[in-house]
Amino acid sequence: MSSHHIVRDDQEPALIIANGAECSKELLGQLLEWSPFVIVLDSAMKRVMKLGIKVDVLLGDFDRNFDPEHYLNFQYLLEIIHTPDQDKTDLEKALDFLIERGFTAVNIIWATGKRADHTITNITNIVRYRNKLKIVILDDHSKIFLLPEKFEKWYTAGTPISLIPIGKVSGITTKNLKYPLDNGELTIGYRSGSSNEAENDGIVFIEHKEGDLLLMECFD
Amino acid sequence: MSSHHIVRDDQEPALIIANGAECSKELLGQLLEWSPFVIVLDSAMKRVMKLGIKVDVLLGDFDRNFDPEHYLNFQYLLEIIHTPDQDKTDLEKALDFLIERGFTAVNIIWATGKRADHTITNITNIVRYRNKLKIVILDDHSKIFLLPEKFEKWYTAGTPISLIPIGKVSGITTKNLKYPLDNGELTIGYRSGSSNEAENDGIVFIEHKEGDLLLMECFD
Repeated sequence: MSSHHIVRDDQEPALIIANGAECSKELLGQLLEWSPFVIVLDSAMKRVMKLGIKVDVLLGDFDRNFDPEHYLNFQYLLEIIHTPDQDKTDLEKALDFLIERGFTAVNIIWATGKRADHTITNITNIVRYRNKLKIVILDDHSKIFLLPEKFEKWYTAGTPISLIPIGKVSGITTKNLKYPLDNGELTIGYRSGSSNEAENDGIVFIEHKEGDLLLMECFD
Repeated sequence: MSSHHIVRDDQEPALIIANGAECSKELLGQLLEWSPFVIVLDSAMKRVMKLGIKVDVLLGDFDRNFDPEHYLNFQYLLEIIHTPDQDKTDLEKALDFLIERGFTAVNIIWATGKRADHTITNITNIVRYRNKLKIVILDDHSKIFLLPEKFEKWYTAGTPISLIPIGKVSGITTKNLKYPLDNGELTIGYRSGSSNEAENDGIVFIEHKEGDLLLMECFD
């Protein structure tokens, strides 16, 4: 089998390209390496076209003088999904779409930067997809995901790890973090666990009993 | 009196330059126009020096091989405030410092962009300064502030207005928004009021009874 032969497996995480700040070509290249199913949100398509990427789905409410049909001329087998529902963001609609299509995991880029309202909404809204879709938001400085009740991962000493509670999170116990928590509580706006780090090379363990807790691996 | 004569009035909002993404020179210029008291956070000073700005205070924990004393040679009457407390972010320490010095208002720039953990922590932590300091976070796409229980402001029709609850906010009633709320509830991660807008030219009224509600005026 030629190494250029593409095998698409729906268990491979899909890739959503949202409408915030662009990431580095390097990060984009890494995420495209396994030829994922690519969804582009609304007018981000204008910027994506310049990158020469194969897009599978263009999704949005297309409400600002944006003609999605135009791109049918340039993208082979492009699927256009018109989602006029004003109660959901385009990102939520794309996540709902992936669940319907049977995907179990997705990486999201361009979801941060530019407008702060979109950034904070995109990041915090992933909590409602717990148990439905494994979501990772990535940008050039950050990797963000929702923690299960018990989480273990190997980190090198000094890796920055931020725990961001979306609302109030209680019963938090950690092992191998520089600033440990023992049955602690974090509350957004009042007590956050930003700028913690792995103490030693090895497994970091984070448990929480109630609430939605995001882990952010960030670097300058 | 010469128009170049500088009158510093501590009622003028101070300006904090944090350590996220740089804003446009235009925005920076507007905020510097009235010669505010300027605080720079930690190693952001390296980038600020290139802009030729007069800095009043350099504040931080200076824990990453950064020598603040170096800048005493270049900034006349620079005050260096070393804040090693690891329980607070540099931004919180700067806000506490301004309160101690009797300031009542502050604009904050470079608090968003780059690391997502810093962005979300910087934005959400302003809620704890209610009644202590009038805080506005600005970047090239956003103006963010905490709403008092009753808020009124004149907007032109179509101005994007996002209501972002930090936790749960209840008893929200609005007038002159395209998607109105009548004694409604918003919860971060589950129901946000992002991407609303002023319906007509005129006063927008927003009331809430419990919780912390941020208003974001954002644009692409």
